[in-house]
Amino acid sequence: MTDRIFLDAITTTKPSGQCIQALLPFFETCFGSSSSPHQMGSEQLVHAEKSVAAIYDLFGAAADAQFVFTSSGAEAVSQVIMSVYRSVARKLGKTHFVTRSIDEAPAIFAISQLEEEECYLRMAHCSKEGYVTCEAVGDAISPRTALVSMSLACGLTGVIQPVEEIAALCKERAILLHLDVTHAVGKLDVFLSHADCITCNGEQFHAPKGTGILLANKNFHLHPLIHGEGEQEQLRGGALNVPMLASLGQAALEAKQHQNLYCTEVARLRALFELGIEEAYPEAQVLFQGSERLPHCTVVAFPGIHSELLAFALSRKGVYACMGGGPFQQMEKVLTACQVDPLLAQSALSFSLSKDTQEAEIERAIVLIADVAKRLRRVSKAVV
Amino acid sequence: MTDRIFLDAITTTKPSGQCIQALLPFFETCFGSSSSPHQMGSEQLVHAEKSVAAIYDLFGAAADAQFVFTSSGAEAVSQVIMSVYRSVARKLGKTHFVTRSIDEAPAIFAISQLEEEECYLRMAHCSKEGYVTCEAVGDAISPRTALVSMSLACGLTGVIQPVEEIAALCKERAILLHLDVTHAVGKLDVFLSHADCITCNGEQFHAPKGTGILLANKNFHLHPLIHGEGEQEQLRGGALNVPMLASLGQAALEAKQHQNLYCTEVARLRALFELGIEEAYPEAQVLFQGSERLPHCTVVAFPGIHSELLAFALSRKGVYACMGGGPFQQMEKVLTACQVDPLLAQSALSFSLSKDTQEAEIERAIVLIADVAKRLRRVSKAVV
Repeated sequence: MTDRIFLDAITTTKPSGQCIQALLPFFETCFGSSSSPHQMGSEQLVHAEKSVAAIYDLFGAAADAQFVFTSSGAEAVSQVIMSVYRSVARKLGKTHFVTRSIDEAPAIFAISQLEEEECYLRMAHCSKEGYVTCEAVGDAISPRTALVSMSLACGLTGVIQPVEEIAALCKERAILLHLDVTHAVGKLDVFLSHADCITCNGEQFHAPKGTGILLANKNFHLHPLIHGEGEQEQLRGGALNVPMLASLGQAALEAKQHQNLYCTEVARLRALFELGIEEAYPEAQVLFQGSERLPHCTVVAFPGIHSELLAFALSRKGVYACMGGGPFQQMEKVLTACQVDPLLAQSALSFSLSKDTQEAEIERAIVLIADVAKRLRRVSKAVV
Repeated sequence: MTDRIFLDAITTTKPSGQCIQALLPFFETCFGSSSSPHQMGSEQLVHAEKSVAAIYDLFGAAADAQFVFTSSGAEAVSQVIMSVYRSVARKLGKTHFVTRSIDEAPAIFAISQLEEEECYLRMAHCSKEGYVTCEAVGDAISPRTALVSMSLACGLTGVIQPVEEIAALCKERAILLHLDVTHAVGKLDVFLSHADCITCNGEQFHAPKGTGILLANKNFHLHPLIHGEGEQEQLRGGALNVPMLASLGQAALEAKQHQNLYCTEVARLRALFELGIEEAYPEAQVLFQGSERLPHCTVVAFPGIHSELLAFALSRKGVYACMGGGPFQQMEKVLTACQVDPLLAQSALSFSLSKDTQEAEIERAIVLIADVAKRLRRVSKAVV
């Protein structure tokens, strides 16, 4: 097991030891339900409050901001989009929603299903550097746009988006802005003040699976997606899952503590990785290197080798990379949206590091990737 | 901590040791995402399949039944009701939904919010024995009823409902039937064939919080509530939470194994408890004793003592009971719906046992409850 090299941290991360420690007492003595008014219920609330405070602190959220603890980022995104549909699209007739061709599945699919409700989705275009510029958003919006929904940083390419200008544009045009900050948490400063609401998924920053955050400014009109009595200020039915919230609160604390590590040591290892691959396999092309990127991920194209084949061969060697799909868009779609040549796009994999990644792993990964790429390239040349 | 007596098992239960053991490997070596096509993703699927098989087995579900792993029973209920709204109410104009005045919060609130969509909710009435009879459901339905949603057994009163007759009636009238089986799992045989779809919450049968089940027959038209790409057969976006699913699968196995224990030993302790309370505090009235009830819970009224006061005083002594509210309806509402005198209804608490409850705890609880009740009764008499 120890010789596995996990370079798919944009999809999930290993939960931190302290996050798991935060979880365990709830399985033993402290197993009450936060919805019970007796002592075994109310003692849960102390833990919940501490965690919520850590989360507000991480995102610089005002005390009057609204918070929903969700089971995933996808749930949080779905709740945002359904809320805007109910409070803006239906009430004010603003039925346009804008997202980006490079964006992730939950936003695209949640908006797409609103097409049944006579809403429609416009995609903002992406530059070849991987940015959705303020101009591109300007081209996509109209006086009937209710919401712009976008990722602060694209998970697959790592490119950080110019959200401040986009936020200013949205404000000027009275359009709500939702930012999915999943991939940026613990890597960049992320503030709720960037947008009207932000969402993220916990498992990308060392919280366990089953954790998500929705934070919205006080004037954002949220509706519940999951119904119930009065739980979570009537914003999410079902007893609050305090164990997972406590664990997520710990992850929020650590995200703040580890941001420096991500921006220095992890960024250094990523540079080492990129340089190493380019040296060991000169045909490789590191994409988006000139753009402002997250410190922990990189997209590398291996011309002439199909990415699925490469990912599969690497998996057999114990090197785990991301080829898009799943919670992401297809890699090929994202890259062609960034005007990458379709054939090159088909040969690209995303490699992502975490605070747990060791230099020795990077060195070994470079050798394995170059070996596998050379072998596959020989085969593909022989076939041609 | 050891002197706490937890008699609130209808609200939550302590997760079983094996359920927690099932969870832990996913926090260490096996932390991949089921959405990744590489080996650390695909190894997750083996665990997921094993758990799903245990869940299908527990509910005797056909291989072609649809399954959604949700984060709670409330989520599962919300998805059922939104699905029926989209596929039946809106498409066929059948806009009536029937539930029961004794039912739980998620169904009532999920249907209530559909009133904005020109749907409406009818409550079926409850007999003084705690049953919603087939006749009562017959009175509530109309040719425009889309769905009857009810609990197989009421959590607060423990009364088991005559679902077979109701199922036959619904079938005859082409009305969909949703059963919330949360409180019955591991206590009664529960089959998907009883209804068109069933839902339950895991934490009531010794799974961790954050676990829920939605099972539907193959013809039931489900829509996602949480959007995403193709996860869970396009029925729930966001990567499948395999750790929690694995833990829930273990709970499903144990629910089947412990059903006998619940129906014999736990039922014996419940009888001991009821008898003990009646002997030690003769004013107490055990309600619904003549009805067919779940084996692990009981409602006891303490005439002249307000239930909140009693619950609070008991909590200070380390005895934890349920006074309704939270995920439940208010106790007073449920009991008055069962034609219990309102004053008596205000004096009632629900006590519920689990497989972990010890005879010594029951003996001690009886003494403590009688002592507290006598003291409060003296005070209330002195005030009058």
